[in-house]
Amino acid sequence: LKDTSGERFFPSLLRVCVCVCLGSNYAMSNGGGGAGASSSTHLLDLLEEPIPGVGTYDDFHTIDWVREKCKDRERHRKINSKKKESAWEFTKSLYDAWSGWLVVTLTGLASGALAGVIDIAADWLNDLKEGVCLSAMWFNHEQCCWDSNETTFAERDKCPQWKTWAELILGQAEGPGSYIMNYFMFTFWALSFAFLAVSLVKVFAPYACGSGIPEVILNITYTEKTLSQTGFTSYFTMNVIFGLGKEGPLVHVACCCGNIFSYLFPKYSKNEAKKREVLSAASAAGVSVAFGAPIGGVLFSLEEVSYYFPLKTLWRSFFAALVAAFVLRSINPFGNSRLVLFYVEYHTPWYLFELFPFILLGVFGGLWGAFFIRANIAWCRRRKSTRFGKYPVLEVITVAAITAIVAFPNPYTRQNTSELIKELFTDCGPLESSQLCQYRSQMNGSQAYPAGSDAAAAPGVYSAMWQLSLALVFKIIMTIFTFGLKVPSGLFIPSMAIGAIAGRIVGIAVEQLAYYHHDWFLFREWCEVGADCITPGLYAMVGAAACLGGVTRMTVSLVVIVFELTGGLEYIVPLMAAVMTSKWVGDAFGREGIYEAHIRLNGYPFLDAKEEFTHTTLAREVMRPRGNDPPLAVLTQDDMTLAELQSIISQTSCNGFPVIVSKESQRLVGFALRRDITIAIENARRKQEGIMLNSRVYFTQHAPTLPADSPRPLKLRSILDMSPFTVTDHTPMEIVVDIFRKLGLRQCLVTHNGRLLGIITKKDILRHMAQMANQDPESIMFN
Amino acid sequence: LKDTSGERFFPSLLRVCVCVCLGSNYAMSNGGGGAGASSSTHLLDLLEEPIPGVGTYDDFHTIDWVREKCKDRERHRKINSKKKESAWEFTKSLYDAWSGWLVVTLTGLASGALAGVIDIAADWLNDLKEGVCLSAMWFNHEQCCWDSNETTFAERDKCPQWKTWAELILGQAEGPGSYIMNYFMFTFWALSFAFLAVSLVKVFAPYACGSGIPEVILNITYTEKTLSQTGFTSYFTMNVIFGLGKEGPLVHVACCCGNIFSYLFPKYSKNEAKKREVLSAASAAGVSVAFGAPIGGVLFSLEEVSYYFPLKTLWRSFFAALVAAFVLRSINPFGNSRLVLFYVEYHTPWYLFELFPFILLGVFGGLWGAFFIRANIAWCRRRKSTRFGKYPVLEVITVAAITAIVAFPNPYTRQNTSELIKELFTDCGPLESSQLCQYRSQMNGSQAYPAGSDAAAAPGVYSAMWQLSLALVFKIIMTIFTFGLKVPSGLFIPSMAIGAIAGRIVGIAVEQLAYYHHDWFLFREWCEVGADCITPGLYAMVGAAACLGGVTRMTVSLVVIVFELTGGLEYIVPLMAAVMTSKWVGDAFGREGIYEAHIRLNGYPFLDAKEEFTHTTLAREVMRPRGNDPPLAVLTQDDMTLAELQSIISQTSCNGFPVIVSKESQRLVGFALRRDITIAIENARRKQEGIMLNSRVYFTQHAPTLPADSPRPLKLRSILDMSPFTVTDHTPMEIVVDIFRKLGLRQCLVTHNGRLLGIITKKDILRHMAQMANQDPESIMFN
Repeated sequence: LKDTSGERFFPSLLRVCVCVCLGSNYAMSNGGGGAGASSSTHLLDLLEEPIPGVGTYDDFHTIDWVREKCKDRERHRKINSKKKESAWEFTKSLYDAWSGWLVVTLTGLASGALAGVIDIAADWLNDLKEGVCLSAMWFNHEQCCWDSNETTFAERDKCPQWKTWAELILGQAEGPGSYIMNYFMFTFWALSFAFLAVSLVKVFAPYACGSGIPEVILNITYTEKTLSQTGFTSYFTMNVIFGLGKEGPLVHVACCCGNIFSYLFPKYSKNEAKKREVLSAASAAGVSVAFGAPIGGVLFSLEEVSYYFPLKTLWRSFFAALVAAFVLRSINPFGNSRLVLFYVEYHTPWYLFELFPFILLGVFGGLWGAFFIRANIAWCRRRKSTRFGKYPVLEVITVAAITAIVAFPNPYTRQNTSELIKELFTDCGPLESSQLCQYRSQMNGSQAYPAGSDAAAAPGVYSAMWQLSLALVFKIIMTIFTFGLKVPSGLFIPSMAIGAIAGRIVGIAVEQLAYYHHDWFLFREWCEVGADCITPGLYAMVGAAACLGGVTRMTVSLVVIVFELTGGLEYIVPLMAAVMTSKWVGDAFGREGIYEAHIRLNGYPFLDAKEEFTHTTLAREVMRPRGNDPPLAVLTQDDMTLAELQSIISQTSCNGFPVIVSKESQRLVGFALRRDITIAIENARRKQEGIMLNSRVYFTQHAPTLPADSPRPLKLRSILDMSPFTVTDHTPMEIVVDIFRKLGLRQCLVTHNGRLLGIITKKDILRHMAQMANQDPESIMFN
Repeated sequence: LKDTSGERFFPSLLRVCVCVCLGSNYAMSNGGGGAGASSSTHLLDLLEEPIPGVGTYDDFHTIDWVREKCKDRERHRKINSKKKESAWEFTKSLYDAWSGWLVVTLTGLASGALAGVIDIAADWLNDLKEGVCLSAMWFNHEQCCWDSNETTFAERDKCPQWKTWAELILGQAEGPGSYIMNYFMFTFWALSFAFLAVSLVKVFAPYACGSGIPEVILNITYTEKTLSQTGFTSYFTMNVIFGLGKEGPLVHVACCCGNIFSYLFPKYSKNEAKKREVLSAASAAGVSVAFGAPIGGVLFSLEEVSYYFPLKTLWRSFFAALVAAFVLRSINPFGNSRLVLFYVEYHTPWYLFELFPFILLGVFGGLWGAFFIRANIAWCRRRKSTRFGKYPVLEVITVAAITAIVAFPNPYTRQNTSELIKELFTDCGPLESSQLCQYRSQMNGSQAYPAGSDAAAAPGVYSAMWQLSLALVFKIIMTIFTFGLKVPSGLFIPSMAIGAIAGRIVGIAVEQLAYYHHDWFLFREWCEVGADCITPGLYAMVGAAACLGGVTRMTVSLVVIVFELTGGLEYIVPLMAAVMTSKWVGDAFGREGIYEAHIRLNGYPFLDAKEEFTHTTLAREVMRPRGNDPPLAVLTQDDMTLAELQSIISQTSCNGFPVIVSKESQRLVGFALRRDITIAIENARRKQEGIMLNSRVYFTQHAPTLPADSPRPLKLRSILDMSPFTVTDHTPMEIVVDIFRKLGLRQCLVTHNGRLLGIITKKDILRHMAQMANQDPESIMFN
């Protein structure tokens, strides 16, 4: 080993250094180092060929957005400059220009088609719990009775072809024996589906558990394997057991399609930042088909998923959502040639005094959201930290068994959750056979229902109210325990169900109040006697939106989704009022939505764009090294040997090293990533002769003057990022956090009067924020 | 004058320097310097009291977003820390926390109320062109005939109380004489309104011309004077003459309200960045009330106006839009207790083959948009550059006269444009008296219109087609010349009218095609004979959206606005297809929308977020000084005298100066603004004794060691921004542009290995981009 003058004075400095972790511990334990190539710097080194392997990422790594964007723009320029050379190159450039639209079109087509298939399959599987169609096994209940001669609405669900399990096995439809038989078969099928689902997840897609939306929000680097397996298993488990929603799995399936199709296009397969654009569009398509709400899907993608590129991906997300919705409409899984899941039309306007119960529903939604997030996170933390989490299959089976056993006796929990929501949303008409619509006017056989009707509730309504209250308690408890199980699940449908139940109860209460006290000053002004001025279905809709808002803390996209869902254009003001109230009430108990809470629970390094940094810290208080820390591991630009470089790399676990002019001046030149250095050294050893341990390593444009007998030096300028982000030590942390968020940085160097002082990484910021919130910074695990 | 050793070598360097213009020439010619205070740096100088005047802006200045945000956060912290001191402080902090919601609520309330008043007044003024209500002068035509006994639909517009001008003056309703009389009065009133409008604008609000949306997009610093005057004059001129839209003026009025109310709250009145948040919410409220489209308004604000804070203002914009829409609904100016301007219901679904004409309409919209933008900008440039622009009143009167004279004979141009759009959107029913609905079935007196009708067109439809074609040509020509006149005007309504006319023509053509060729393979499959399978009104709606998309290049917000406008939830796919096509076709001819084009025409320094920077330039090629330029004017941290500092300031017109350690090292310390230095010096002269011309000026924490006989030194650290943004000279310009856009910077310093090299300002970037696009960089004027 040959000591150069500069290094002789700093041996300890180089040995013990602060670890600068840019990626995640997960990746580091895998032996993978940092990532991200600085292609922009290649511009200056056109003579040197790029080193293979530089500029790729490991799984579950965060992305250096700035570099990835530069890479893409350079690729784009290369293609553009070649364009005029030949017809083939021109075709290639055209293909490249259109590949963005192609990939979102394909994603939209595939998501729409898969959503249609999933909807039909889920319907069939759900009806299988109750019975089977004798004439054709593959028909669901509705299709089975399609040709039935029974035209009475009350009897339309009964047709000779459709047999409940009791009829099939015991040969009788009524009586306690057949009830028990149906009960048993219901539980049996629920357990079978649960077992099938959790086994599939365990075998094929270990990451497919939960809703998957937190992962999509994070834009974590998935392998295609994870995503495609999620797609497969989602197919089997969705919406069938537990009455869980389908938006999570469908967003996942859409992202899976997006990921697969992006492999067809070099523009997207080789650039992680560009792939995120596709995933963002795919998640819009996913929400679009989950609810038949294309605009809501785009807004969801904007509000929750698109972190770095709001406007840019808007158009493509829009297009993907459109294509997916269009395909789904062509498949027509709901048989009503409508896009939307719940189509409702109300016939009466709403009145000003109704804002009070609507806001009350908003308060309920906010309280429910805050309670659900706390309870669910507490339960998930227990699952994560105790031995209990080691038996996911057993847990799923247990929950499924309890759900099935408790759910069956109550008609409102027995039925499919989507159907329940639909029933709750629907306004009572003369043809409605539901128990909820047993008003006295209907009992009297009056057909002219709304006008001049007798809106006093009949016994049917009262018993429905009781059953709904029980269903509400049941749903609240079960949702807490089921969201986060190791099966793909969504949160929208159960949350909406809870809100819809609460809303319908409030709606009926207000209706009866208005009927019996129609001379109150409130009602007297708005409700004529005998007229139908309260719509309980509208209350259900408002309640559903409020509960969803409380849980997810979305506002705009949520209102748009609900309003597309129901076609209730006139009722946007009540919806907005309830959703805003629910957000405010929820925020009073904690600002995080359920997705952010799960992100934090899972320890992903995520800088939430919605939370403001309000402390007065300066960059120098957050940067490392701090106080008693050993100094930062740095490289000098032209006076280190290969052996010294390798010893620094081997003795530290840092993911990247700042390069400075000299130890004396400490002036910053650039930044080199550990992974790139390792790859470059190996590459040089293999290809260049004369590279020895005492070879000089230099990052400058020209080789330094060396003694005559020294071995061939190694030039590493091509892997040097010559435009690292820097801030001064006096920069307030609020600005630093802003820069990290808006530019998507992974690290930032800190200087004082032009001299390098330290480094700040995303994790340093997260640790600092935890410390400021009086949490133990070490409790935040990054896995 | 005492020369210090450092400066002796660089006399010429300090004398002639590169001008670093941070603001605009407009402000500079006014003698105003730079702006923006670095409150964050005050943290370190708590002992020094803030200097009054530091941190304010001149009119029409761009804002330093980062500094403004820091200022606000510091203010917030101050209030928070005092909170627990007394009940009064606690109340103040509560008031502060809620002031954001209060100001948007007030803005929403005021915008909604003003919009209602404007709608009613505009209706009345519009009907005044045709006649007057004898029983009550202040009634418009519809209100006048409210109590009329005529119940036939064809006759409902004729009632004895309402007199046309001919009836009133000549005493006869029919005949050529009365026609000429009506013609004359129509022209007379149009001219009077035009004269009134342009005079009001000229006297009260010189900046209220045009739509005002470009200015709102730019977030230019308005004085409240400009805005409130705009509000007043908008009231008088809107929607009455020229058939121009009201969205521009209403957005302006809403921003005016937002601006006025923000003066009530110190949080907003003293911080330009926070005020932009209010303006952003206000523009959402403006669009919301202009069309009754609250969600569309929010999206408009997001897509066009909110440049730096997409998510943060989303909720408040949403709330403002909600409140405004709610107020407008309570005022109920359209008398149908609906929020929306054009409420349509269609009864037939659309079929797949109809996508072809829809896409054709999209192409038309795109072509129209591209043509309109080019023609309108060419005309506005001519107005700006020739003598012709000096007579705005004459121009307005001329255009008004031509419009009135040409418009009267054609019933489709005579009527209010909003009414025309409504008529074109509406589906034909048996009760429709319009010429457009004279199908043979109606002629035969068949009342069961849609089912089994005879959809062959009768002569009425053919003559309507001719009149519509003429109206289309007329509208196209007039819109080009009227948008940009010195009266407040919008673009949405005329664009939609053009699209609706074209769409209705195409729709009727397809309908007749389907009727006469119902055995074609296309129609055979979808249209049953005698059934009504084409809805011409839907084509009008799609055409309107396509034309609007072509002109503004909005996609998502536009579809949402149209779809809220019409309540046509089912028709979102045709709308999306047409709008996307129109955007693509328009983009093929030039990527700018009309607002961006007007921004460029007016020479505002605006970095468009939608346009990508695709060149390979590095920062050192764009920064100044370049090649042969004289060196940059810099200050040193502790070896200049006051006289030297003043001579630098007086000899340069730069708006700010980098501060370095010393001339030798060139290491960067910070950045000081010209305006702040001037204010600080004046302040020191007034308040501190012993400050003389040879006083040493220093920016360091501690005063430098000085000879015993030297006068008292002047400490300027409090005005020094110690966290200036820096990039290295090797940074690709695409990254620099990204930083400027996302962080809202005004300038950025360029370093090489820790030494200061130069500076890049927003205008340098804009000049460079012009150069890259082969335009003369000097042709871009910033005024």
